[in-house]
Amino acid sequence: MTRPIVTVIEVGKAVIDADTVYTEPVHFVVEDGIIREIGVGPYVPKTGERVDRYVRKGDRVAIPGLVNTHGHAAMTLLRGAGDDMPLMSWLHDRIFPIEARLTEECIYWGTLLASWEMLTSGTTTYTDMYMMMDRAAQAVAESGMRGVLSVGVVGLDEADRENGIRRSRDFVANWHGACDGRIQVTLGPHAPYTCPEDYLHEIAELASELGVGLQIHLSETRVEVDDCLGKTGLTPIALAERAGLFRVPTLAAHCVHVTDDDIEIMRANAVHVAHNPQSNLKLGSGVAPLPRMLERGLIVGLGTDGAASNNNLDMFEEMRLAATLHKGIHEDAQCVNAATAFRMASEMGAAACFQAQGAGALRVGSPCDMVLLDGKSPRMLPQHNLLSDVVYAVGAEDVRDVFVAGEMVVQNGEPLAIDTERVAYEVKRLRDRLQP
Amino acid sequence: MTRPIVTVIEVGKAVIDADTVYTEPVHFVVEDGIIREIGVGPYVPKTGERVDRYVRKGDRVAIPGLVNTHGHAAMTLLRGAGDDMPLMSWLHDRIFPIEARLTEECIYWGTLLASWEMLTSGTTTYTDMYMMMDRAAQAVAESGMRGVLSVGVVGLDEADRENGIRRSRDFVANWHGACDGRIQVTLGPHAPYTCPEDYLHEIAELASELGVGLQIHLSETRVEVDDCLGKTGLTPIALAERAGLFRVPTLAAHCVHVTDDDIEIMRANAVHVAHNPQSNLKLGSGVAPLPRMLERGLIVGLGTDGAASNNNLDMFEEMRLAATLHKGIHEDAQCVNAATAFRMASEMGAAACFQAQGAGALRVGSPCDMVLLDGKSPRMLPQHNLLSDVVYAVGAEDVRDVFVAGEMVVQNGEPLAIDTERVAYEVKRLRDRLQP
Repeated sequence: MTRPIVTVIEVGKAVIDADTVYTEPVHFVVEDGIIREIGVGPYVPKTGERVDRYVRKGDRVAIPGLVNTHGHAAMTLLRGAGDDMPLMSWLHDRIFPIEARLTEECIYWGTLLASWEMLTSGTTTYTDMYMMMDRAAQAVAESGMRGVLSVGVVGLDEADRENGIRRSRDFVANWHGACDGRIQVTLGPHAPYTCPEDYLHEIAELASELGVGLQIHLSETRVEVDDCLGKTGLTPIALAERAGLFRVPTLAAHCVHVTDDDIEIMRANAVHVAHNPQSNLKLGSGVAPLPRMLERGLIVGLGTDGAASNNNLDMFEEMRLAATLHKGIHEDAQCVNAATAFRMASEMGAAACFQAQGAGALRVGSPCDMVLLDGKSPRMLPQHNLLSDVVYAVGAEDVRDVFVAGEMVVQNGEPLAIDTERVAYEVKRLRDRLQP
Repeated sequence: MTRPIVTVIEVGKAVIDADTVYTEPVHFVVEDGIIREIGVGPYVPKTGERVDRYVRKGDRVAIPGLVNTHGHAAMTLLRGAGDDMPLMSWLHDRIFPIEARLTEECIYWGTLLASWEMLTSGTTTYTDMYMMMDRAAQAVAESGMRGVLSVGVVGLDEADRENGIRRSRDFVANWHGACDGRIQVTLGPHAPYTCPEDYLHEIAELASELGVGLQIHLSETRVEVDDCLGKTGLTPIALAERAGLFRVPTLAAHCVHVTDDDIEIMRANAVHVAHNPQSNLKLGSGVAPLPRMLERGLIVGLGTDGAASNNNLDMFEEMRLAATLHKGIHEDAQCVNAATAFRMASEMGAAACFQAQGAGALRVGSPCDMVLLDGKSPRMLPQHNLLSDVVYAVGAEDVRDVFVAGEMVVQNGEPLAIDTERVAYEVKRLRDRLQP
């Protein structure tokens, strides 16, 4: 039996979770990636206790690593390839032609670019639904992040359907639980408008057989909902329920155009939601009824969506936007408070994408996914309320060091396991090949 | 006659204005703070030409310094003092009690904190309406920023009115045009609900006499508009027009709840607007009809508002929010495109706060207010469209160097003329005294 690796991290202040803030120095004792002990003041070793690594950052503020509950990582390669366009012409004239040229190396380098951007802006866990996912998983394995990955599948013809099932089955077999559990796999039926009802049913059966959850786009645009109602008489969410999709744990992205009945279906079936406020605005999709979903007790995380529709992967922006957008829309400054937004970006987000209990917080027993912010940032001055500063003022520019499962993966703003010069070189090379 | 100081700045790429992007190396020749020449490639000195200073930053992307057209700088001291509260209880229970304790040194250190935050996040010009403004002006003089400053005045009793007029007159005399024009002064009537109509008239007369413009809050909240309609039968904007306010150049902040008639009044009177999307959301004020104001040809800049209602002074966030928010609200992805948002944050913003022709751009003849972004940022990869990247992806974290009037004021992320350790010490000391 090998002895566990013990790391001690000392910081100046810490936000443990949305309800617990230390405004004094704190130390964390981390054992094999799990927080075993939290104490005020510097760490004092007990007799016989051995510490393998010390990290002493007295001028940092620790917060849980942020959780990005929806995205398509390798779409970083399409960042800025089309903006300010109507959705259909954006998809058909810009996105699809480039996507048709994507190769395995595009997925690998694009996902590394996304990991670089996410880690250095404070995200430690992300979800992904895209193509050629073995290469995405390889990038996640190398970068040190946590990923909840899925092969995006569509079922518009028989070949697609069979491919989707086979690839999903293989991907679960090869990667679910890999890298000491850092990589988890779900199934990824794209949406009801690309997956017919019987195919959704088949995918739910497969998820059930394999013991995994699934992620899907639901009710992102008004047109999608109207089309579905026209064709089936049901909203996409009611249709997904009828297909039996919700009998397995489901993370539904967007949910912008949802009725109260849809929300009730999601509540009754414990469907989780990924709220993507910036993408929903930028694509002209609309504003999701987040306050109603929270009132009804849904588990809601926040997501950036892909970098073609955002156009960055900054979860501080999503957290701030989730906290402010609905106040403005409802003309109610009390709507979605700082603690709620923080919870969605951390612990509730982790729950939304099926992470273990305690994930997304820094409590004893939580995995040590931790971000250290610059305690000397002007955005943290004068510091009347540290949680408010983190939600409403701090940005990616204040992220300094990042740990995933107790391993340091970003130090003083630089990723340790990603060769950023190489990534920059490769994605520029690939860009020139992607232009139609 | 002294010889002009000549600075040459070489960069890897440059956004000159919303319509002009260089994706190749560019050099700028700056003479006494004004851009005299722009050329592709490295600078080659002509015979007899003397250069005093070279700045060679081949891995940087130059953009115009951003312009923050509305705020209350020293309110950084109130950052996070109250959030998620109804407007009236926020004002009366949190903001006003703290403001009553503000002293001259609070204004000085609070404004330096704001300058530190703004400069290092890429803002070179800002507007300010607050109290004890001599100390704010002193901070601006030292920090190296450009400021359009005003004494905020209210006219609820005779003493207030007289004080406001006297202080405004003195402030214009002492500071308008100071620091080689970096500091400009306007009058600052707070709002129609704090300045009766005859007082607005008196202030307009004073502005006309002194040859300065004015800045004012107009139609920020629904309650304000309804109260004004109830008391006078006019909207705040119609009332301000009747008071003769718009006979002098006016910058109107917020304009959230405005009618088509209001917009027509503003258009006919060439009233400029400061759109503050994040503050308007966070305080639950609502969403201004920006697309209609732009369609009607109004000059609209962007602003952060004070750090008590935002809670940061990051103009990249405002630019991105202005470009995305209205797309979402109108469910139209073509609404407020990247070039328009960029223009509002730069050249149109400079025009909105009465800067000279050419300000807010990097053309020949423009003042050299320039921000150098990290060209190696992951947010600029793979770079299909540099302007899109600047508007939709880049953040304060990518700001490296900043020039105002050709003087370097931020180098590698650090302000050169602000003692940030001292500012941090002083604002923490002052915070403890401000708590009620």
